[in-house]
Amino acid sequence: MTYCVGVKLETGMVFASDSRTNAGVDQIASFRKMAVFERPNERVLILLSAGNLAVSQVVVRNMEGLGLEDKVTLYNTPSIWNGAELVGECLRDVRARDGNYLKENNIESSASFILGGQIQGQPQELFLIYPEGNFIGASTETPYFQIGETKYGKPILDRVINHETDLQSASKCFLVSFDSTMRSNLSVGLPIDLLVYKNNSLKVEHRTRIKEGDAYWGSLHQQWNQGIQQLFSTLPDPTWENPA
Amino acid sequence: MTYCVGVKLETGMVFASDSRTNAGVDQIASFRKMAVFERPNERVLILLSAGNLAVSQVVVRNMEGLGLEDKVTLYNTPSIWNGAELVGECLRDVRARDGNYLKENNIESSASFILGGQIQGQPQELFLIYPEGNFIGASTETPYFQIGETKYGKPILDRVINHETDLQSASKCFLVSFDSTMRSNLSVGLPIDLLVYKNNSLKVEHRTRIKEGDAYWGSLHQQWNQGIQQLFSTLPDPTWENPA
Repeated sequence: MTYCVGVKLETGMVFASDSRTNAGVDQIASFRKMAVFERPNERVLILLSAGNLAVSQVVVRNMEGLGLEDKVTLYNTPSIWNGAELVGECLRDVRARDGNYLKENNIESSASFILGGQIQGQPQELFLIYPEGNFIGASTETPYFQIGETKYGKPILDRVINHETDLQSASKCFLVSFDSTMRSNLSVGLPIDLLVYKNNSLKVEHRTRIKEGDAYWGSLHQQWNQGIQQLFSTLPDPTWENPA
Repeated sequence: MTYCVGVKLETGMVFASDSRTNAGVDQIASFRKMAVFERPNERVLILLSAGNLAVSQVVVRNMEGLGLEDKVTLYNTPSIWNGAELVGECLRDVRARDGNYLKENNIESSASFILGGQIQGQPQELFLIYPEGNFIGASTETPYFQIGETKYGKPILDRVINHETDLQSASKCFLVSFDSTMRSNLSVGLPIDLLVYKNNSLKVEHRTRIKEGDAYWGSLHQQWNQGIQQLFSTLPDPTWENPA
């Protein structure tokens, strides 16, 4: 399993992804799920992927151009909308080619992507690309997208994130969201890749990889857990006034 | 969708269920998902159900005996283990009878149940009955079971509930878990049925139905949401010491 989340805010964008993949609990490995396509002062695109790793890796590799100079890739696509189309088409091609072979062994060829960033002269954009290859864009009302193991970490996003949230708070909220997800699903795990993009900067602002033993992660994990338990204990006890 | 949760603690058991069912967002209705089988001083059994409503209702109705006096039901089954077997067998029968008709219209016949309680002279028991009709029992290490829309509300259970949790705290925790679930999934909704059983009492201790406008629910919802946001704001901001 995987967990990835991306958000488009007034002041910029934040992306985060875990690095765990598994094919059963006896086969867990670490792979980067965040690919960054950066040409400073011209474009920054971030592609997060979840689902079948062999399928998503082919898509990412194609988006990098496979070393072919004349190929349309995320390095030269004229718009992020067009980039989302590229990702979707490539995903359809790969699934059409490999899907039936996988199905013979009851293996899912499904994969999904979050693509976001900015190209010079254009507004920042964020898209969610479905396993079917079609996609939707983020809005001020629905500023974030998740892929993979999305549910455990969603409540905190819904409570904290809105279009006006600042980049620091959104980064912190993503990490709390990962903390909840990792507590309830062992197949989502460290390291976490976290990237911050400032609107109109056309370069990566911050990028960090949070590994086992990271001091900030440790204190966040501990303070959140203790804080939740403390908050819980201050809530009023139930009343039993309305017996059914 | 539905959300139900039950827990077996040192001092007793707590059960909660929502009442919303839907077949698409344009067809939402309210049905009780909690059935109580009580013979004071002899037995208290609680059956929570999730999944296809027509399927689960037939199972519940059968467990009540369908008005036939000589039938084995949850009112006369000799043990709760045996009760779980009854529920599982009945579920298999109903799915065998109706499942293919449903499948023709791409409708799931799946349903799952939580059965718990106590019979005189026996310890309290809690079982999760799978859609396949087999089941597992709760333990001191894994004291609670959820069915239906389980993920949004799981993190708070994992942070708070253990075998030694008292009945008041567990009830409160269940309601917080419902609050998180209802915030992220519109198809889980009020009223919530909440029932508390004290170990060895052989009668229902508390039973309440929390409806729209309930004062305790309102204050819990508000205090939890404000508390989470306040706690979140006190957490340290991320550091960016390890650029990748």
